[in-house]
Amino acid sequence: MGTGVAEETQPVIQETTNGVHPAISSDPTVTDTDVRPQYLWPKTRSLLQDAFSEFMGTFILVLLGDGSIAQVVLSKNTKGDWQSICWGWGLGLMFGAYTATKSGGHLNPAVTLSMCVFRGFSWRKFPIYMCAQILGAMAAALVVYGNYKSAIDQYEGYGIRTVGLNTSTAGIFATYPQPFMTRTGMFFSEFIGSSILMFLIFAVVDNAAQYLVPLCLFFVLFAVGACFGWETGFAVNLARDFGPRLVTYALGYGNGVWNAGPYYFWVPMVAPFFGCLFGGFLYDVFLYTGESPINKPFMGVTRPKEAWRNAAQKEKVSKA
Amino acid sequence: MGTGVAEETQPVIQETTNGVHPAISSDPTVTDTDVRPQYLWPKTRSLLQDAFSEFMGTFILVLLGDGSIAQVVLSKNTKGDWQSICWGWGLGLMFGAYTATKSGGHLNPAVTLSMCVFRGFSWRKFPIYMCAQILGAMAAALVVYGNYKSAIDQYEGYGIRTVGLNTSTAGIFATYPQPFMTRTGMFFSEFIGSSILMFLIFAVVDNAAQYLVPLCLFFVLFAVGACFGWETGFAVNLARDFGPRLVTYALGYGNGVWNAGPYYFWVPMVAPFFGCLFGGFLYDVFLYTGESPINKPFMGVTRPKEAWRNAAQKEKVSKA
Amino acid sequence: MGTGVAEETQPVIQETTNGVHPAISSDPTVTDTDVRPQYLWPKTRSLLQDAFSEFMGTFILVLLGDGSIAQVVLSKNTKGDWQSICWGWGLGLMFGAYTATKSGGHLNPAVTLSMCVFRGFSWRKFPIYMCAQILGAMAAALVVYGNYKSAIDQYEGYGIRTVGLNTSTAGIFATYPQPFMTRTGMFFSEFIGSSILMFLIFAVVDNAAQYLVPLCLFFVLFAVGACFGWETGFAVNLARDFGPRLVTYALGYGNGVWNAGPYYFWVPMVAPFFGCLFGGFLYDVFLYTGESPINKPFMGVTRPKEAWRNAAQKEKVSKA
Amino acid sequence: MGTGVAEETQPVIQETTNGVHPAISSDPTVTDTDVRPQYLWPKTRSLLQDAFSEFMGTFILVLLGDGSIAQVVLSKNTKGDWQSICWGWGLGLMFGAYTATKSGGHLNPAVTLSMCVFRGFSWRKFPIYMCAQILGAMAAALVVYGNYKSAIDQYEGYGIRTVGLNTSTAGIFATYPQPFMTRTGMFFSEFIGSSILMFLIFAVVDNAAQYLVPLCLFFVLFAVGACFGWETGFAVNLARDFGPRLVTYALGYGNGVWNAGPYYFWVPMVAPFFGCLFGGFLYDVFLYTGESPINKPFMGVTRPKEAWRNAAQKEKVSKA
Repeated sequence: MGTGVAEETQPVIQETTNGVHPAISSDPTVTDTDVRPQYLWPKTRSLLQDAFSEFMGTFILVLLGDGSIAQVVLSKNTKGDWQSICWGWGLGLMFGAYTATKSGGHLNPAVTLSMCVFRGFSWRKFPIYMCAQILGAMAAALVVYGNYKSAIDQYEGYGIRTVGLNTSTAGIFATYPQPFMTRTGMFFSEFIGSSILMFLIFAVVDNAAQYLVPLCLFFVLFAVGACFGWETGFAVNLARDFGPRLVTYALGYGNGVWNAGPYYFWVPMVAPFFGCLFGGFLYDVFLYTGESPINKPFMGVTRPKEAWRNAAQKEKVSKA
Repeated sequence: MGTGVAEETQPVIQETTNGVHPAISSDPTVTDTDVRPQYLWPKTRSLLQDAFSEFMGTFILVLLGDGSIAQVVLSKNTKGDWQSICWGWGLGLMFGAYTATKSGGHLNPAVTLSMCVFRGFSWRKFPIYMCAQILGAMAAALVVYGNYKSAIDQYEGYGIRTVGLNTSTAGIFATYPQPFMTRTGMFFSEFIGSSILMFLIFAVVDNAAQYLVPLCLFFVLFAVGACFGWETGFAVNLARDFGPRLVTYALGYGNGVWNAGPYYFWVPMVAPFFGCLFGGFLYDVFLYTGESPINKPFMGVTRPKEAWRNAAQKEKVSKA
Repeated sequence: MGTGVAEETQPVIQETTNGVHPAISSDPTVTDTDVRPQYLWPKTRSLLQDAFSEFMGTFILVLLGDGSIAQVVLSKNTKGDWQSICWGWGLGLMFGAYTATKSGGHLNPAVTLSMCVFRGFSWRKFPIYMCAQILGAMAAALVVYGNYKSAIDQYEGYGIRTVGLNTSTAGIFATYPQPFMTRTGMFFSEFIGSSILMFLIFAVVDNAAQYLVPLCLFFVLFAVGACFGWETGFAVNLARDFGPRLVTYALGYGNGVWNAGPYYFWVPMVAPFFGCLFGGFLYDVFLYTGESPINKPFMGVTRPKEAWRNAAQKEKVSKA
Repeated sequence: MGTGVAEETQPVIQETTNGVHPAISSDPTVTDTDVRPQYLWPKTRSLLQDAFSEFMGTFILVLLGDGSIAQVVLSKNTKGDWQSICWGWGLGLMFGAYTATKSGGHLNPAVTLSMCVFRGFSWRKFPIYMCAQILGAMAAALVVYGNYKSAIDQYEGYGIRTVGLNTSTAGIFATYPQPFMTRTGMFFSEFIGSSILMFLIFAVVDNAAQYLVPLCLFFVLFAVGACFGWETGFAVNLARDFGPRLVTYALGYGNGVWNAGPYYFWVPMVAPFFGCLFGGFLYDVFLYTGESPINKPFMGVTRPKEAWRNAAQKEKVSKA
């Protein structure tokens, strides 16, 4: 399928940490066919590539994920079951990562934050990534809603949109906890899901062959969904949950989207950040030997003079 | 399984854009064992290779896809469920791509069209590909019918063939929409499925390691089926739907195959073309940096003189 | 898992066509640690390696395959469903291929026959392979029976072993057709399953990266099971069906193992050979460009003088 | 997802047999960024790396495995079925292997024992590995319990914890046999599961491309669960079963955790060792041609003088 333009050992995930996008590289020896910044749109696109990539990647993630929930819920489990939902989100993450190759494929503000804290990802990019991710998730929720509008009308009744009833469809877009959960339990469930996500992302990026990483991401999110997905619906991602929730509010699902749970909506906004930071911390403390604040003196909390001097000297040597 | 004739880094998908098939290459230095055009059949085959490959590839696609639906429907969900159908179509696409390696593995007229528009695939080949794909799908539907004839007789009653009833088996071969769907909804559902298909094919061909592409195609069609497959049965392919529909008409399923829906049959013939074009457009606009009309001045709509001159100059340089 | 003895680009499937096993290679420059034929057992083993490999490979195939059926049947579908059975046989073939790497991983007399006919595999080895495969399947059926003996006693009643009733367990080991099938339908179903098997094996070995071949074999058998497995239980293999059937006869399941169907038992013994030959023929006729009888003058049926001369000349040139 | 720090052909599983950890290598030419033993924590960690790796790897294995059982049991099969459990344990082993790359990813005392016996793994490390594995499994069981506490309370009744009833939840953590099993049957079921595990691990490590090994491990444990997992719950691992069983005892599940079965608890402690040894033995006897006691004179039982002399001479030559 497709003409063989892909080179054989093409890197799946590009290095974008340095903030210089290859498409606007100033290296005069590059004669790559990909460099054609002389036309208006390619020039614009290369400036906005990170945002576009995260937008489209998160769009694909939520499109497939929410689409799979919609199909299972609206067909009353005849065209899929919980496992389809795990497949949907897993494939969403896999293809989102293939889509957002140029921006590193974070697709999740909490992952971006952990990359900033533990892997020296540019803090300056954090707000751009987060906005693009939320907007991508919102666009995807709109498309899923448009596609399944007739089915929702048939399921809930024409024009009726509710939250929390047996015939409600708000759960297609954003997550709602099981009724027996305590507030602490909800937070912990999202926290542990996010920790596993981040821990395994670091483990996989470190240890898997690079071109198997997107496939492994499929398995990572599948695992979170199959093992810790029931209680709160494994949002583990502010963009994936808050974006579609906003959309359902705008589409007339009422205040229930905010006060169900009760007021559960803030948990999947906050817990993933703490969870991903903890998962990344755990990985770096026990297993990571590369560049990380954990592998600096006093685990990066302070940086004594001697260390500064060492680092400066090292830099000099490598420049010479 | 098999003797190790496959070379290790053998390309999964050959370059066929230039229209010169390697097997009839005139390069005198090629001493490949694959070049033996002196015998009658190999010579004939190499001339017809594109058509044969697309025929056999689409044959495998529809054989496994329709076969999986047949098994699920006729065994009354005891030997499979919706997920088997996703597996069946996904594996059909994967093995169809392996089978049709020599022609690029399009297996879908809408994919071929998008390749012509966005990747410079030879327009001259479009009608050949489309005919081969439709014929391949028809042959596969016949084989599936032959294989499951006893089971259909037992399911519908001996010699009875119907469309749209609870005991109908026409849905094994071609797709029929859910009863609650509006015409717009049907079109949109096929449109979005095809867009996802084409967008992800481009994303995967661009970013995945080449030998993982067929495996990724499995996941692509699985995703479309698990997330957007319920409402209209994810035909997303003129050949896959129209070919088997013709076969069911010829086999005596009656006029229902055309007027069910009502007159749904044209939707999976038309929508995939628009959907695939839109999906390819979206990918090229936001993410693609290679050769594409989108990456030309004014997004390829016009081509001002200066651009022509640049291109000509570039060509000269590369020839020199 | 395991110490890193595997080399990175280790071939998954060794070349065994020439009949000289690498372990007894006489090449004096080989200083491989694998060559230690001076001790008794390694020497014996290297002489019998083909038989041992096919035995163990078919053992694994049938162990996992029959094991998965046993678990589904005896747990009354609570610990698996039809899809588990597809997984079981698919994984059996995949791990059987990994196990029988040294002999080429045929695991099926019909595959061995097709390799002899279409790929120049040594005819001399055919009876050895076939015996080893049948014995391996018999050993596996015995182990599955031993493991699930208590469960069979609880399911059928202590010491009761029957064929063809609702509470029968003979179907765990050998295949039995659906009651509505005609004799022609049974034969055709096995024939088409075997054709798909062989066609896809050739397609995969030809076009997939070599180390992905066992994974693809998983998908191949999964596809046969999910799409054409219901009517006759996709034996597609004399060894897999006849071996365990003999075992069930010996274990006291009675004459029913032979006369059920009625006298169905010979279909999965004969049809796979025809099916695999046809599948291989189809692939070679339409797609294969390597060494095959199909790619000789008059499709290998006769070999006129001119062709002999050409071949001889070619050989001379390549020797010089 | 993630910044491209992973090198392209990075080895998935490092060689750790020699007991010298790369991070504390004394080779002065190594200028790897991974070598920074001057700080306190990295230095400590590199000394304890094996223990940390096995701890975290087994933690991930049991976290995902027990988590998947918890979700299936507590949601009363609405958010998963037996297949989710196979996925959970398979993914647990796969990601456990990615996590514990630095220690070889055994995650199972019986696997460590087999590596010592058949692959020259350091006996000195056996107790360290076993302790780390058991502690990791215990930690994981605690986290699963914490996460699903509300759900267990809702399922069993607040504060009630039982073993062996229809509403019991002890089976989430440790395994309990089916009621109809004999003691011999239990032992044999665990024995055969462990044999398959070890046999396939050796087959995969030997024959699969190195970076596909963790993916194959997913399939290995999935196969054991789908084909031989029903009767005793496929513990096949002292750490996975005994660790969580201790935790459930500490959490108040009562003496039932020990005397259910009756006194089944010792079977998954003992049988895996025998099973893994037998599986490894089988592989080495019939298929392995590398360094193994089986490939020594008299299958390693004795080592006559001549063999010693040969070995010594060989060593000299390779040193010269």
